[in-house]
Parts: sequence; structure tokens; C-alpha cells
Amino acid sequence: MRTHSETLQIRTKGKGTYEITDQVAAAAVKSGVETGTATVFVQHTSASLVIFENADRAARVDLEEYFERLVSEDTDYFTHTCEGPDDSTSHIRTVLTRSSEVIPISDGRLQLGAWQGIFLFEHRRSPHLRRVIVTVLGV
Amino acid sequence: MRTHSETLQIRTKGKGTYEITDQVAAAAVKSGVETGTATVFVQHTSASLVIFENADRAARVDLEEYFERLVSEDTDYFTHTCEGPDDSTSHIRTVLTRSSEVIPISDGRLQLGAWQGIFLFEHRRSPHLRRVIVTVLGV
Amino acid sequence: MRTHSETLQIRTKGKGTYEITDQVAAAAVKSGVETGTATVFVQHTSASLVIFENADRAARVDLEEYFERLVSEDTDYFTHTCEGPDDSTSHIRTVLTRSSEVIPISDGRLQLGAWQGIFLFEHRRSPHLRRVIVTVLGV
Repeated sequence: MRTHSETLQIRTKGKGTYEITDQVAAAAVKSGVETGTATVFVQHTSASLVIFENADRAARVDLEEYFERLVSEDTDYFTHTCEGPDDSTSHIRTVLTRSSEVIPISDGRLQLGAWQGIFLFEHRRSPHLRRVIVTVLGV
Repeated sequence: MRTHSETLQIRTKGKGTYEITDQVAAAAVKSGVETGTATVFVQHTSASLVIFENADRAARVDLEEYFERLVSEDTDYFTHTCEGPDDSTSHIRTVLTRSSEVIPISDGRLQLGAWQGIFLFEHRRSPHLRRVIVTVLGV
Repeated sequence: MRTHSETLQIRTKGKGTYEITDQVAAAAVKSGVETGTATVFVQHTSASLVIFENADRAARVDLEEYFERLVSEDTDYFTHTCEGPDDSTSHIRTVLTRSSEVIPISDGRLQLGAWQGIFLFEHRRSPHLRRVIVTVLGV
């Protein structure tokens, strides 16, 4: 059995989606695993993961706008706002997307579909340095 | 360590939930794994996975109706609509459900609860042939 | 390769979030795995998992209140209500959060971020005994 673990450091410039497909694919190759899985995990509660359409930028604009409305910063009953109006909203947006995502590996490479990209979804207004752990298991 | 990977081809007839529990359970058995995990992964950005109540069909009707409203095709600010009104909505409904799901295996079989079924959730109006990869790892 | 599987029994007192971080971390240690993953899986369709801020209780109050509104028990078109107004809502809240979550292990311990806790999210009004399977794979 082969295992490989590495931590990606992703610099964000505030709210939005940041593609990390290439870094995850590189970790899969580096592992030497032919058949197995790559687990992607975000070590934060105000940033998350999505696997999303990566061809047309407009799709991501719609996604980001949708989340602004689904979990609005104007929500009047939120009480956990000590770090600002993007405090509870960031945590809830994380819950509605993903903290971990597991992608199959075969023939030594990540088996994403033609239009799938892996994105870090930053929910905070201010820039952050985010830690994403990639763990590859297989043979 | 044992690994097993196979690709299911699921034919959909438009929007709705399609049960794939038996196919995933069969892949688990075929792997010969006694203790481990089965990772289910959809290679698309407009179809997703849910683990859902599989006894009463009415529960799935409610789920499907709920998503029609939560991410409405009538949303006026969506711009990624080149493939129709089910374009951005399909991607966002995928994000709100799952691209990957990991189910434990012990005693050589999938450890689903009594009422849990695995479903492909098709978000497109038109029929599609969907690819779902099942990767089993364990001993 | 090392594998470890155990079933946690979590007693809930009705709707809300119940932290299970310590039990999952203990399973990771017990496995003896240095590098790998811990898969957490809920065997139910009316309780789910979230990885959430575990420092300020107010964040969880906001989360719980948010879900009461996002999938309201007053929804008039729900038909799967044989077990009460928390029937379809429980299933849909499960779909919008997680049935499985995969957390990396390195240096022999669970790699959660500083503010991350693992919570069982009970969506039923009445008390339940919930089964959560933890499966550890690695070396």
C-alpha cells in the first residue's frame, strides 16, 4: 500500500472560488498510486470545497451570487457576529458545501470528469492563507 | 491491501432520483474487501449523489420539489444559461448535495442503515448517460 | 496496511448538534494508523454530520436556527409527513449537510483545524440513539 500526504497553502483575496485542481492532481501523481483515492480536506470553518464546472467563469459568478442570497449577511437573527457580518454566514456556507471531498484515482491519475474542477470556496471578506490537506491512499 | 474500481453507467430520463444502491453493493462484494470503504463519485457537474430514505417514494417527491424551489429555474440573476434554464441550477444543486460519498464496509458488505439508499440525482431536464465511479479500498 | 472500524452510539435529546470529535479522535489513535484517513458515516436518514466551529456556542445556535427556516416544518407541499412535521424536513436537512465525512490522519492523529469540531446533527424532535461508524485506513 502507498500513502502520500501533503498540505497545500492557498492564498485567497476574499470571497470567491479558487481553483486547486492542478495542485491536487500533482499530489496524486507524486504519490505513485495507480488505483486508490485522493481525499481533499479544508482545515477551516469559514472556507470550503466545491467540485464545480470549470469552463465558463459565468457559472462561478452565479454560484457566488446564489450563496450571497441563500445565507445572507443581512440575516437579522444571527448572533455569532463578533468577527463581522461574514462570521456565521461563513460557517453556514461551509456546512452547505464540503469540508472533505474524495476523488478516485485510476491509471495513476485523478478521475475527474471533463468539466469538473476542484475549488476552494472562500467565505470571508478579507484575504486568508488556507490550509488544504491532500491524502492519497492506494496501490 | 485490496482495491477494486469500476465505472457504473446510469441512464437517466431527466430530472429525478435514481437508486444505485444495488450496483454499489455489488461492487463492494466483488472487491473481496472485508473491512474498508467504498467511495462513490459522480463525474459530472449537473448530476450528484444523495443518501436518502428509500422506503416511501413520497420522501423523494418532496426532495425533488424542494430543490425545484431552493434553486429555481426562474432565478432572474443567473447568467450561465447557455444550455437552458437548467444550466446554473444544475451546477448549484450539485454543490448543495454531493459529488462523492464514502460508505464503510465491514463483514464484507456495505454498512448502510436500514432506510438508506444511494441515489444519483439528475438535475438536467433531458436524458443523460451518467458515469459513477466506485472505488473500494481495504483488506 | 492497518484498518480499524468501530460503531459509536450517540444518544440525542432531540434537534440540535452533538459534538463527537473526541470519540472520532480516539478511534484514530486506537487504530495505530500514522498516515491515512478516518471516514465518519451516519447510518440514518434523519440525522447527519457537520464539521463546524466548536469554540463559540452561538455559532451553533445560528446554524440550528438557519436550518429551521431553510427547510421549514411549515412547508405546505410536503407529503411525506407520516411520522410528523419533522419527517421530510429531517431527510432534506440530512441531504443538505453530510452523511459521510473523511478526515486526514498524519503523525498518528486526526488533522482537524484549530476551530473544527465534528458534530452529529439530529433533525428529529424526539430523542434517538444514533449509530455512527468510524473506519480508519492507512499505514
